[in-house]
Amino acid sequence: MHAWQFTDLGAPLTLTETPTPVPAGDEVRISVRAAGLCHSDVGFLDGTLTPLLPFRPITLGHEIAGVVSAAGADVTDFEVGQKVVVPAAIEGPGTSKNGGFADEVVVLERLVVAMPDGVPFDQAAAATDAGLTSYHAVAVQGQVTSGTRVGIVGFGGLGSLGAQAALALGASVVVAERNEHAREFARDLGVDRVVADVDELAGSDLDVVLDFAGFGATIDGAMRALRRGGRLVLVGLGEARGEIDLQALTLNEIEVVGSQAGTKEDCAAVLDLVRDAKLSSRITTIGFDEIGEGIGRLERGEVVGRLVATFG
Amino acid sequence: MHAWQFTDLGAPLTLTETPTPVPAGDEVRISVRAAGLCHSDVGFLDGTLTPLLPFRPITLGHEIAGVVSAAGADVTDFEVGQKVVVPAAIEGPGTSKNGGFADEVVVLERLVVAMPDGVPFDQAAAATDAGLTSYHAVAVQGQVTSGTRVGIVGFGGLGSLGAQAALALGASVVVAERNEHAREFARDLGVDRVVADVDELAGSDLDVVLDFAGFGATIDGAMRALRRGGRLVLVGLGEARGEIDLQALTLNEIEVVGSQAGTKEDCAAVLDLVRDAKLSSRITTIGFDEIGEGIGRLERGEVVGRLVATFG
Repeated sequence: MHAWQFTDLGAPLTLTETPTPVPAGDEVRISVRAAGLCHSDVGFLDGTLTPLLPFRPITLGHEIAGVVSAAGADVTDFEVGQKVVVPAAIEGPGTSKNGGFADEVVVLERLVVAMPDGVPFDQAAAATDAGLTSYHAVAVQGQVTSGTRVGIVGFGGLGSLGAQAALALGASVVVAERNEHAREFARDLGVDRVVADVDELAGSDLDVVLDFAGFGATIDGAMRALRRGGRLVLVGLGEARGEIDLQALTLNEIEVVGSQAGTKEDCAAVLDLVRDAKLSSRITTIGFDEIGEGIGRLERGEVVGRLVATFG
Repeated sequence: MHAWQFTDLGAPLTLTETPTPVPAGDEVRISVRAAGLCHSDVGFLDGTLTPLLPFRPITLGHEIAGVVSAAGADVTDFEVGQKVVVPAAIEGPGTSKNGGFADEVVVLERLVVAMPDGVPFDQAAAATDAGLTSYHAVAVQGQVTSGTRVGIVGFGGLGSLGAQAALALGASVVVAERNEHAREFARDLGVDRVVADVDELAGSDLDVVLDFAGFGATIDGAMRALRRGGRLVLVGLGEARGEIDLQALTLNEIEVVGSQAGTKEDCAAVLDLVRDAKLSSRITTIGFDEIGEGIGRLERGEVVGRLVATFG
């Protein structure tokens, strides 16, 4: 089969011919139909995240949707022909094992999630990473439900998905975003209020703010936008260390909660939202042969939304 | 009646003769039996907290235990002769109204809590502020229950009460405290482990850490002592602004929660712990006539534990 592999630091992905993998007893093999390209992939190539890779050459691709093509003897929950996705995870394909930039990928059964009918493969692939991360931040760490007053700080890829998840859950949503084009997108989604700077939200008495930027300054701004006892979910990693207003946090009994990735259950919930047309990623699709060049486009910042290769 | 009043910035409290107050319909009058002296009282006198006082001269004293001596026409939950306390609150006596450094004090019925039998007045008075704050941090904001693995950072007045509350709730407790005398006290209480520096607790996999110090550095140390998804309750206000490790907070899904004062329900729960001999404040008692001088002792840092005036 064909696979795009990472071989050496600084070199682009190489399209190679590799043996079709055979699933172990607790694994399924998936015929990949869509694989999302991620900024993490750029990091794997440029040295930033390279130390995380356990071996080389390794096939990248950790945003995977496809059809089960073979199942190990111990597999009980999936059968050949079933549509599935693999939620992005450190222990999963494309990071710890050979991934989805290939015709076929083998994955531990326990990492696989069934795909509901009515979801396109490209949207399913995008849902496994950015969608999952955003949903987990909103629904699980943010505890957003119907009627929750939500603030979204930063309306990039994750923030816009987070806003859609919050709206789908019945929340009211205000958005702070510096980029005018992104603010337009927020208005198109029908959120209640859009401002340029989080400081304009001071006194908004919000229940939950999701900070997709992640700086000391955005945290301070978010705390001023929250009600007493409100919840601030930190998703973005704008700076590794930041100075924040500890006095305001304590005296207003603010809860600051970190959020990272998500679970299989979260992934299933996101796919249901996609099926119900309540959440969709902005996607640019490319072909399998364009994956190598696609990484370069990501690296050069030429892509708006998610870049997903569809094939098979 | 006699009352210790604050008149002018920089002047000590003045013992004066004032009319015995008459309760309004929704108020009770309490014959004060014990009134705790607090560092906040020093702040009211020295300018730090003076702006919070709504009028002068004002009778200070916001840690109050006593016996109901009169009840307004609309009062339903309390009767003359009943033992009660008043949980310390911004809107309460000794901060927003005349307080408990007097023979009698009038208080809104809704701010009053019944005192269980078997609790001495001095312990009851101390429970209304430091006890209440510590218990609220541990039981409510910290969600500590039986089996919770708890860390206490800072074993001063609040920290030692917090440790007692955690032990009473069935938690296991480790303590980080710089002062050797305070560490001895922690060992005497029977906590599981006592260290000098919070950094020694790194990797302890704790469920909850209560930070009674409240510096960026203690927060970072507490985060390293927590398990993934663990909870950090910020009670101390060591510094108004502090730099913390946002990356660790996010990637380990830590919850940082502020805690401030407590509710009537918390106060009732603390009094039950005192009655059951599971929580007690270290108290130095003085007489009513010594209240003025007692504030000076607090200001000069001469008091270990709580200073409570008992009288009536």
